[in-house]
Amino acid sequence: MHFMTALKAAWQQRNSLLCVGLDPDPAKFPAHLAARPQAIFEFCRDIVDATADLACAFKPQIAYFAARRAEDQLEALIEHIHTHHPAVPVILDAKRGDIGSTAEQYAVEAFERFKADAITVNPYMGRDSVEPYLAYPDKGVILLCRTSNPGGSDLQFLDVGGEKLYERVARLVAEEWNASGNCGLVVGATFPAEIARVRELTGELPLLVPGIGAQGGDIAATVQAGRTADGCGLMINSSRAILYAGQGEDFAAAARRVARDTRDAINAHR
Amino acid sequence: MHFMTALKAAWQQRNSLLCVGLDPDPAKFPAHLAARPQAIFEFCRDIVDATADLACAFKPQIAYFAARRAEDQLEALIEHIHTHHPAVPVILDAKRGDIGSTAEQYAVEAFERFKADAITVNPYMGRDSVEPYLAYPDKGVILLCRTSNPGGSDLQFLDVGGEKLYERVARLVAEEWNASGNCGLVVGATFPAEIARVRELTGELPLLVPGIGAQGGDIAATVQAGRTADGCGLMINSSRAILYAGQGEDFAAAARRVARDTRDAINAHR
Repeated sequence: MHFMTALKAAWQQRNSLLCVGLDPDPAKFPAHLAARPQAIFEFCRDIVDATADLACAFKPQIAYFAARRAEDQLEALIEHIHTHHPAVPVILDAKRGDIGSTAEQYAVEAFERFKADAITVNPYMGRDSVEPYLAYPDKGVILLCRTSNPGGSDLQFLDVGGEKLYERVARLVAEEWNASGNCGLVVGATFPAEIARVRELTGELPLLVPGIGAQGGDIAATVQAGRTADGCGLMINSSRAILYAGQGEDFAAAARRVARDTRDAINAHR
Repeated sequence: MHFMTALKAAWQQRNSLLCVGLDPDPAKFPAHLAARPQAIFEFCRDIVDATADLACAFKPQIAYFAARRAEDQLEALIEHIHTHHPAVPVILDAKRGDIGSTAEQYAVEAFERFKADAITVNPYMGRDSVEPYLAYPDKGVILLCRTSNPGGSDLQFLDVGGEKLYERVARLVAEEWNASGNCGLVVGATFPAEIARVRELTGELPLLVPGIGAQGGDIAATVQAGRTADGCGLMINSSRAILYAGQGEDFAAAARRVARDTRDAINAHR
């Protein structure tokens, strides 16, 4: 199924704008999992099974797997999601960006090896560095626009001929790169005014919004700034606050409670 | 050894500014290797052994390994280089870019798992997305500045208050992020005037220059624009022209001839 079709169906049928980020750090795992050889997969699988009906998307962050030689566990995790929760699309958070011939290889990695439904991509190298992902018509391509971290302003907030660099990126994506209707943008929850500006520039483009919870972004301001007319349009990501809500054997139940509360807090402002 | 120390020693002792890029594409391998289970490692190992005395650095591109589930072969390749050619530093071409907590994971991947001496990084997310790499004092951090691909101009050539975005990146890196003396910049050979401008802005900063050969950049113009006063300062990368110089069992000898000719063509203009 097309990523955008799956995402819209998930928004409506699950009544959720919550994206559950999967950033598995073994140092934070419950003690009973720590020594298990497939701990990363098992931890994420239990989180996924406990939150799938509350989520519009899952977003595994590849660095947490790659740092621990655990690509096989990432493959198994995405296969598990597709098999047991086929209505929830998977965004591989990889933030790739390279020349076309190399981007083709990264697209194979994301879409053919890991079988992700969408990928995050860095726009710094321009159009031909993005095209190999766009060439997969059913896949989503979510470009960094205005990121939630402190250094995000170093380049993204520079004035480029009467607009900020992030606004130029938003327009480039909405007006040119999204010709096949499979693009989205990353806009951090720490900057609600800029979410509103990106929404204004991009119509109904889906926005992936990290930065609530551990990074300090405000849910009410994010939803009010970024929702589309039908109360959708957002994938509001929470990772650490959900993953590490509990420290015991009931960690998945604790994660479910935080995920449900976060979904409900989002819905209260739609 | 510190990456910059190793690089300077390699420039001088080997009398070479040539960086050999390792972008292994099995579809282009000689027939006798194609069916071997470790073909990617064996192909790259033979190239490395045939060119190590001609190179100032090796630059494996991680996407070519990741697309084929061959991270183990990349680990083996870098270990082979460190063991058999310890004077030649390894730059992991990964172009990572993410928030600090995730960048820490990517730094573990590059420097602890793969044991690279340096990594390429995307500057779009700003200072705190780069700091986790800079925190490894012996490692090199080579930031994208002016890339060699056609879309490089989409953002990098925008005017930001009287200078181009790539010039701002060059200044940020040279004046702020390079406080520990371990940064470099990527500047494409397709834009000699911009290599000269980056050299002017950054003093002696090492420049990694892709784009000669298959991408059309000119060696003489690149060297004249980018060399430092002592005739060094450049890692001029060639990948496909060297890797696929021959199609038979003598592919490594063919690669050596092209690598030697490229090194000599570079040296003719130092």
